[in-house]
Amino acid sequence: MANFSLYIQQVPQKGRAVFAAEFIPAFSLIETCPMLIFNPQDGEHIKQTLLYDYYFEWGEDGERIAIALGYGSLYNHSFSPNAEYQMDFENNSLLVCAIEDIFSGQEICFNYNGDAEDQSPIWFETK
Amino acid sequence: MANFSLYIQQVPQKGRAVFAAEFIPAFSLIETCPMLIFNPQDGEHIKQTLLYDYYFEWGEDGERIAIALGYGSLYNHSFSPNAEYQMDFENNSLLVCAIEDIFSGQEICFNYNGDAEDQSPIWFETK
Repeated sequence: MANFSLYIQQVPQKGRAVFAAEFIPAFSLIETCPMLIFNPQDGEHIKQTLLYDYYFEWGEDGERIAIALGYGSLYNHSFSPNAEYQMDFENNSLLVCAIEDIFSGQEICFNYNGDAEDQSPIWFETK
Repeated sequence: MANFSLYIQQVPQKGRAVFAAEFIPAFSLIETCPMLIFNPQDGEHIKQTLLYDYYFEWGEDGERIAIALGYGSLYNHSFSPNAEYQMDFENNSLLVCAIEDIFSGQEICFNYNGDAEDQSPIWFETK
């Protein structure tokens, strides 16, 4: 569930994006996203679809894949993000947290590498 | 985006379910769910996964399939629902609307047949 008011809007060149509709203080939990978890066989099908660009590696060993509901699939990537995510395997949830103050009208992004500081290229840059 | 405060909770025998966290007056728009739309080739893969139980037929001709983000994938089915959905193909959104007053703490359900009155068996009953 979202703890703050959010909205979705199209952004040129990026598609849909998640925006804050109110002030979100740094270190707040923005949203708890329920996850759909796939078994490995389903995962092979999922990776052959547009969900290739959406899935998260899931579980302690990263062997399963998961899709985020809520707005978890719609946050864009940034190398200088204002949010980050944590994976709660026990509750099959993705926790999206602010890492700095986010103001109403700002886009909310996280680093798709997981670690907010990780500057490694991501798959859609290296394709 | 959700216009009312909602929460997700596990329900015995049903899995996750969507609940109202506040009073929702009849005929209110509860949530606008962004949809992920698949081309027919992707759709064939999707149907072979657990998403078989989640997809909506999509488009004027119903030839595409779509998965609901937000909480659109987590509403349970009821033959006496308190909500219904409308498909907004132009904006690739699923609109979930209250068809009666819904009180805080009540589960929100719609009829998976689309029409709130349609008493036809649904696929997971007929399996």
